[in-house]
Amino acid sequence: MDDDAAFIEQCQAAVERRLAELTPDRDARPARLAEAARYALLSPGKRFRPMLTLLTAREFGGDPAAALDVACACEMVHAASLILDDLPCMDDADLRRGRVTTHKAFDEATAILASVGLLNLAYGVVASAAGLAGPLKADLAARLSRAIGFSGLVAGQAMDLQDRDRQRAADELEMLNHRKTGVLMVAAAEAGALIAGASSLAVLGVGEFATHLGLAFQIHDDILDVEGGADLGKDVGKDAGMTTLVSAIGLEGARAARDAHLQASWAGLARAGVGQGLLARYVHDLFEARRAAA
Amino acid sequence: MDDDAAFIEQCQAAVERRLAELTPDRDARPARLAEAARYALLSPGKRFRPMLTLLTAREFGGDPAAALDVACACEMVHAASLILDDLPCMDDADLRRGRVTTHKAFDEATAILASVGLLNLAYGVVASAAGLAGPLKADLAARLSRAIGFSGLVAGQAMDLQDRDRQRAADELEMLNHRKTGVLMVAAAEAGALIAGASSLAVLGVGEFATHLGLAFQIHDDILDVEGGADLGKDVGKDAGMTTLVSAIGLEGARAARDAHLQASWAGLARAGVGQGLLARYVHDLFEARRAAA
Repeated sequence: MDDDAAFIEQCQAAVERRLAELTPDRDARPARLAEAARYALLSPGKRFRPMLTLLTAREFGGDPAAALDVACACEMVHAASLILDDLPCMDDADLRRGRVTTHKAFDEATAILASVGLLNLAYGVVASAAGLAGPLKADLAARLSRAIGFSGLVAGQAMDLQDRDRQRAADELEMLNHRKTGVLMVAAAEAGALIAGASSLAVLGVGEFATHLGLAFQIHDDILDVEGGADLGKDVGKDAGMTTLVSAIGLEGARAARDAHLQASWAGLARAGVGQGLLARYVHDLFEARRAAA
Repeated sequence: MDDDAAFIEQCQAAVERRLAELTPDRDARPARLAEAARYALLSPGKRFRPMLTLLTAREFGGDPAAALDVACACEMVHAASLILDDLPCMDDADLRRGRVTTHKAFDEATAILASVGLLNLAYGVVASAAGLAGPLKADLAARLSRAIGFSGLVAGQAMDLQDRDRQRAADELEMLNHRKTGVLMVAAAEAGALIAGASSLAVLGVGEFATHLGLAFQIHDDILDVEGGADLGKDVGKDAGMTTLVSAIGLEGARAARDAHLQASWAGLARAGVGQGLLARYVHDLFEARRAAA
């Protein structure tokens, strides 16, 4: 194993350990609520958002250990959003990450409270992160709130639930995908840059990188869903009948859009003063791994 | 109108104005989500938690204006929790504050997202509050997270949903009521003291005051519910069959417990170095008003 691969494995292991430490344990009361939170958060996942935080911090010469708690907070927000997405009144999904969804494994009320608890814990973790200055923690919390809020993740989910049968135009889909997937990746990557003390201009470049990366990822998944056979561990064919960029502009157009967003994301990294380093290789490998799994 | 009454009215008007400014307006997209958030947050309410923040700040010589945003954040958390409490999978309530509940006025998914959006906005407001130092904002966010989280409000709601038919013992009810009602009052009052620069010891006294106040309030409401005829603007007789301190130790015992908690709350204020000032009179009047309305 080369140094890069070892470093990535080390980061992933650190995220897993820290997530388990930060989540309420089985001694918490009510135990069922804590169990549901652990079930949703600690289920196997690639931990993409925390890895974005840690690897971005490293690109700017920061210590990934200093960014670990904030990285974990991003994963908590992600897990919280997945619980809600899967609820009967939303996507009504039975499977997630290869296991039954949280409201199926527990019950609806417990799932909703676990989601709210995880979102809330994310803020507690950011606000209490050891070794970070107060003003930085406040800035990170404010950015996280903008990413999640009524112009971000929460609004994206609400948009997604509206008029599902209507074919959406490409630009509307882009806005939807940005809010549902992109904003949190942006917050995660920017957090890494901020913790490493990157300049404001560099943080903007990182935001550009993550914005286009989020769009590329969503289109990639839409393509894999249509190409079929993909075992992404969630309900298969769930997107059938739902409008995606593939249904809006066709498979070839979607592929071209994905590749254009990937190029734009590398350009953002370059503008941030970060070359094709470990962060870029990690992202590239992730795309290939998803393609290979499909 | 005397000066005190004018000041309280002025604070309440400031809270209403600021809440309306901070909530996403009708131009936000999707408009339905923003409307649901405004519906839940801006419905008539006594704004007790924000008033606790503002009046506590004033008791310690702080400027209530500096505490206004954090006060509003506490109301956002409260409104978010009420939306969830009322959901079909929780209390399944039709009425709240004299109007139909948010999921009835909109739909379940929109209500849940509005709740999560309001909780999230609360953190954004605390983290971005003008005029407060970064370390203070981080401290306030961390305290808010402990109040809401897996040992606080969220856990209280989960406890409340468990074994509803079982008669709970008095000490279990106290823990439940503290988590469901007290923790957020504590966070609200402590925030006022912290913003005003009160000493750590004074903040502890304020926490004691608000802890006992929350318990006294919950018991007061339980008593009013049994005495009946109370028009509290929520489903009447909702508590029938549910275990409260009244069903655990009887009406007389509950009255004695309420009065003991009220005394303990004044003792907490005294320990904080705050006499029977405007804050105490405001709380006292609120108790009397609820009794009179019943």
